[in-house]
Amino acid sequence: MNSTQPETSPGRRGSATPDETRHRIEDTAEALFRRIGYQKTAVADIARELGMSPANIYRFYPSKSAINEAIAARLLAGVETEQWDIARSAGPAPERLRLMLRTLHQRHIGLFFSERRLHDMVTAAMTEHWDVIKRFIHGTQTALRHVIMDGIATGCFQRTDPEIAARSVKQATLAFTHPVLIAECVGRSLSEAEMAADLEAVIDLLLSGLRA
Amino acid sequence: MNSTQPETSPGRRGSATPDETRHRIEDTAEALFRRIGYQKTAVADIARELGMSPANIYRFYPSKSAINEAIAARLLAGVETEQWDIARSAGPAPERLRLMLRTLHQRHIGLFFSERRLHDMVTAAMTEHWDVIKRFIHGTQTALRHVIMDGIATGCFQRTDPEIAARSVKQATLAFTHPVLIAECVGRSLSEAEMAADLEAVIDLLLSGLRA
Repeated sequence: MNSTQPETSPGRRGSATPDETRHRIEDTAEALFRRIGYQKTAVADIARELGMSPANIYRFYPSKSAINEAIAARLLAGVETEQWDIARSAGPAPERLRLMLRTLHQRHIGLFFSERRLHDMVTAAMTEHWDVIKRFIHGTQTALRHVIMDGIATGCFQRTDPEIAARSVKQATLAFTHPVLIAECVGRSLSEAEMAADLEAVIDLLLSGLRA
Repeated sequence: MNSTQPETSPGRRGSATPDETRHRIEDTAEALFRRIGYQKTAVADIARELGMSPANIYRFYPSKSAINEAIAARLLAGVETEQWDIARSAGPAPERLRLMLRTLHQRHIGLFFSERRLHDMVTAAMTEHWDVIKRFIHGTQTALRHVIMDGIATGCFQRTDPEIAARSVKQATLAFTHPVLIAECVGRSLSEAEMAADLEAVIDLLLSGLRA
């Protein structure tokens, strides 16, 4: 309800709601993780940046890992929402499916590699907060299934088990969305354009397989 | 030419050819890597096991890493030969392609996970001897291309660029052949049977995409 007020300054944090404070902690922590790296950022650094005491941060998050979990969850929620927006948009199912996979690849490239520092944060999230990742994988796979069911209903795709088809599409494009594999491609100096071209070829093959 | 003689014992290594000695070093090192682990095995351990001096081993291999490279190369050469045997066998191209991908998955599972100790040896090979891995990837992908070209020639597969198709098939099945991804599936207690079922579904989709 304070939306018309200027951004909460450290001095008046007493008037911020708990949700606002959580957001500020997450924003500040995310900025530090990007700038300094996840491993090198301490809760004390986040507190200092916010003009808070570490004890105050611990009232909201029991650990740095818990802050990272919240950041990972909201980053992935944004990507998942975008996937659903495409899944529910107008247009032929094959085109929506292609756009979803292409966008997912681009977001992963962006999340993990446009800012190299973010990589250890993602790695930590993948080992410590697998449930967050699992929900994301489940959500995006359900969006894929939605489009495949649409495609079957409109006669674009052959009749098949949409759950199995969505899982197969997901697994067949893992080379383009899994952080470790993307990192490997980058490490072996495969350019983003080459990766994108490879992905288009795989999508062509998958769409050809789904088509009626 | 010594094939009818009993296995060379440490005492008569003077009569062994350099190739025989290399084989013995590799066999012994591989056994130790499997038993103790790559990181924990020293060249001195390999020498002791063979009744040789470390200096004698260094005459053949400049480092433990070089021994690992030789072991990785011959392990992968065996898998590649098997892929080519299937690629050149009789039978419809789609069946050969399925068998190749299924066998490749099983060999990776076997190499990396039937003996957990081997994992750090594989990891070391992947970071230190990427050329060996690259040649293997190139070789198996060429075998895939061979079968796809056969399939196009016999009218099983639609006309397409076989090089691109082979690359796509390779990338679309990376989730089932990449050590890191297999390790992740194992770590998340996906059973070998579940992974195999997932792979069959992906192969079905890819074959459907390749078919005329």
